[in-house]
Amino acid sequence: MLRNCRRPWLSLGSLRGIRCVTRRAPSLRREAGELVKPTTAGCVLPCRAAVAWEAGKPLVIEQVEVAPPQAMEVRMKVKYTSLCHTDLYFWEAKGQTPLFPRIFGHEAAGVVESVGEGVSDLAVGDHVLPVFTGECGECRHCQSEESNMCDLLRINTERGVMLSDGKTRFSINGSPINHFLGTSTFSEYTVVHAGCLAKINPLAPLDKVCILSCGISTGLGATLNVAKPKQGSSVAIFGLGAVGLAAAEGARIAGASRIIGVDLNPNRFEEAKKFGVTEFINPKDHDRPVEQVIAEMTNGGVDRSVECTGNINAMISAFECVHDGWGVAVLVGVPSKDAVFMTKPINVLNERTLKGTFFGNYKPRSDLPSVVDMYMNKKLELDKFITHRLPFSDINKAFDLMVKGESLRCIISMED
Amino acid sequence: MLRNCRRPWLSLGSLRGIRCVTRRAPSLRREAGELVKPTTAGCVLPCRAAVAWEAGKPLVIEQVEVAPPQAMEVRMKVKYTSLCHTDLYFWEAKGQTPLFPRIFGHEAAGVVESVGEGVSDLAVGDHVLPVFTGECGECRHCQSEESNMCDLLRINTERGVMLSDGKTRFSINGSPINHFLGTSTFSEYTVVHAGCLAKINPLAPLDKVCILSCGISTGLGATLNVAKPKQGSSVAIFGLGAVGLAAAEGARIAGASRIIGVDLNPNRFEEAKKFGVTEFINPKDHDRPVEQVIAEMTNGGVDRSVECTGNINAMISAFECVHDGWGVAVLVGVPSKDAVFMTKPINVLNERTLKGTFFGNYKPRSDLPSVVDMYMNKKLELDKFITHRLPFSDINKAFDLMVKGESLRCIISMED
Ligand SMILES: NC(=O)c1ccc[n+]([C@@H]2O[C@H](COP(=O)([O-])OP(=O)(O)OC[C@H]3O[C@@H](n4cnc5c(N)ncnc54)[C@H](O)[C@@H]3O)[C@@H](O)[C@H]2O)c1
Ligand SMILES: NC(=O)c1ccc[n+]([C@@H]2O[C@H](COP(=O)([O-])OP(=O)(O)OC[C@H]3O[C@@H](n4cnc5c(N)ncnc54)[C@H](O)[C@@H]3O)[C@@H](O)[C@H]2O)c1
Ligand SMILES: [Zn+2]
Ligand SMILES: [Zn+2]
Ligand SMILES: [Zn+2]
Ligand SMILES: [Zn+2]
Repeated sequence: MLRNCRRPWLSLGSLRGIRCVTRRAPSLRREAGELVKPTTAGCVLPCRAAVAWEAGKPLVIEQVEVAPPQAMEVRMKVKYTSLCHTDLYFWEAKGQTPLFPRIFGHEAAGVVESVGEGVSDLAVGDHVLPVFTGECGECRHCQSEESNMCDLLRINTERGVMLSDGKTRFSINGSPINHFLGTSTFSEYTVVHAGCLAKINPLAPLDKVCILSCGISTGLGATLNVAKPKQGSSVAIFGLGAVGLAAAEGARIAGASRIIGVDLNPNRFEEAKKFGVTEFINPKDHDRPVEQVIAEMTNGGVDRSVECTGNINAMISAFECVHDGWGVAVLVGVPSKDAVFMTKPINVLNERTLKGTFFGNYKPRSDLPSVVDMYMNKKLELDKFITHRLPFSDINKAFDLMVKGESLRCIISMED
Repeated sequence: MLRNCRRPWLSLGSLRGIRCVTRRAPSLRREAGELVKPTTAGCVLPCRAAVAWEAGKPLVIEQVEVAPPQAMEVRMKVKYTSLCHTDLYFWEAKGQTPLFPRIFGHEAAGVVESVGEGVSDLAVGDHVLPVFTGECGECRHCQSEESNMCDLLRINTERGVMLSDGKTRFSINGSPINHFLGTSTFSEYTVVHAGCLAKINPLAPLDKVCILSCGISTGLGATLNVAKPKQGSSVAIFGLGAVGLAAAEGARIAGASRIIGVDLNPNRFEEAKKFGVTEFINPKDHDRPVEQVIAEMTNGGVDRSVECTGNINAMISAFECVHDGWGVAVLVGVPSKDAVFMTKPINVLNERTLKGTFFGNYKPRSDLPSVVDMYMNKKLELDKFITHRLPFSDINKAFDLMVKGESLRCIISMED
């Protein structure tokens, strides 16, 4: 499959350093009198990617080959990526199925480099956000108003290959490297199903809106689309990472009057004030369950809760802390494989509602452009989520920061 | 407290056989030229009641004394009562706290005999349905559109006394007998908080609408008010007793195209066809979990499910059998005290919704009159729920019928 092309492309701007490894030389054309850059479409592109060879071991920046996009696929140049806790879980592979070697990363922003056969609504140069769950537009989920869990393109954490042919588009010396969530954005180039790419306003700064590609939209939508707190209501947020703080931001936008933040890491509390969080609970400070503390603070429970930790105990508390009669709890955190949600059925019978969501119930292609516009129209702040910036070569530091709970979002610049 | 009045009332129609046991003789008055029956208001009324002395032992029809209603209470003459599975659970007291001696019964219809101080919206002679959960009209639940779990008058299965003074209104030779669910309708007279009585159309036949006082409204409302299936959708009903069949009736009214009935008792299947149930599953006929059978039948799961069994395994299956992305499961069955609801959190995360309801989310005083009117306007059939009729003296037979799974609803006539 891998064919070598002799022509080095050292002078081609954004393609600097990339050598076409197919035999077909990229064509240099003139269109309307302008010199058009040679296209890399159809070539196998060598580029840098951070490869996870083993669970929990530092990623290694390697030269990988990225095959051209097949039918309904798009190859994108990743400009910025950030790190979401979901990457960490599957990299640690403690409560999750290990699959290595793998290229992680799913929160990113970039530009379309080339499109495969049949891709009609995306073109070279479009600005895009990849999303771990897609939208084919045709299945029952895509046609339902209620669901964003596309039958074809929904999240699949176990799959390391592309859907069309069951193969990877990444390889090193001919050995395949697994994909992650169909996105694998810890690579200068990646191949993504066209249904997993949202085309966004080209004026949006990619080094900021990249965080809308997963965490921030997820938290925001979990509150605005799923929990739907009323004006003046009380909302508890479990986990004050970027996802939880985006959920808090959603509660603030919805007009909640009390936003109670729950986290085991007290360092999160100061920062959380910027996101409208009005009260804090560290479960470690109490000798009784946090749902009881919340019930005491709120005369029986909060109106809504959003769980953004991935911890099963937090999930259960998030459910049990909502008020009977009308309380709604929304689970967002990705649980470990063996976790079991347990509660007395009377807690349900007492007219509480339990829901879960992926990507805040946003349909990625249909809805994400308008979330980007919320940012462009200054309805949504993103800067406060970005606590760190690092060059790609330092990607392992971003992992350290998240493990230590020091970062919310760390933007990794692929070109540095 | 108990004072004896010497005047026997053997000739007073509906009060036949009842002797006032207070010293105050009931007054015989003339109003607008008509002879007005002496009022028993303020008297302690002796009457027949079916007393449960011990868990699981046949009820004994005893002469009990019923004290007059206190402030905000009403004494009603029970005309008809029926038996709901909730009575059976607390009588068996296997998975529930035992409290004996006790007068069970909560599904009934009757007439107001007298009202206590402060009761302004009910008068002697009003036709009423008692409800195990009340509506004070003032608390946050009563004022919320979403909840019917009145802070003051919500279901309390452990309490055997009246709220106002913590005492019972029933006694035998001065020894108190416990109430059940604030209704205790297995008695010719009972005292109920005014907030737990729905005043209904006086033309409605009490020997039919009595089943709207609990089971039928519960099942109907669980579907219409909580599960809210769309036209053309699929609905699974777990448990084809009266509550489950009322839930099926709700699904039929909502225009569901497939109504899948699940019951361990195959005798229920023939009858269930009258209620619009289109397909049947007996979990015993399959070697795989019923949620899997349902997923296979429905291309991934039903749109809605309503659990009306009280069995924890059925509750879990009812949740797991709904389609991801949009499925909603509603728990109605009263669980045993030690039951634990367990599911993998990914089942929630996959955008399923779990809800519970008491009394089908109807607010008893505000909404029940209109459910009675649905029957009067022939939008709702009740006859098909009534499989048996028995005189009060045979009440234990009604228990046998329910234990054996032979009855849906057995109407017990208090005057026979
Ligand atoms: N459902 C989705 O679509 C979706 C999308 C993105 C992320 N996620 C998940 O959301 C969660 C949060 O992601 P993030 O990137 O914000 O992670 P993060 O590590 O930045 O934040 C998680 C926070 O939860 C806190 N926490 C952990 N256990 C807790 C407990 N028992 N009680 C209270 N707080 C606790 C941590 O201290 C931390 O501050 C993760 O589980 C991630 O996998 C889900
Ligand atoms: N939430 C409320 O407001 C409310 C009100 C009334 C009744 N209830 C409860 O609703 C339930 C039904 O009441 P009912 O009067 O119709 O009882 P019922 O005994 O007439 O019917 C229950 C049915 O469930 C079936 N069943 C039991 N276990 C099952 C299982 N594992 N799988 C499938 N089917 C199973 C039985 O065979 C029976 O046909 C009871 O638990 C009752 O306590 C709740
Ligand atoms: Zn993520
Ligand atoms: Zn789809
Ligand atoms: Zn009942
Ligand atoms: Zn109330």
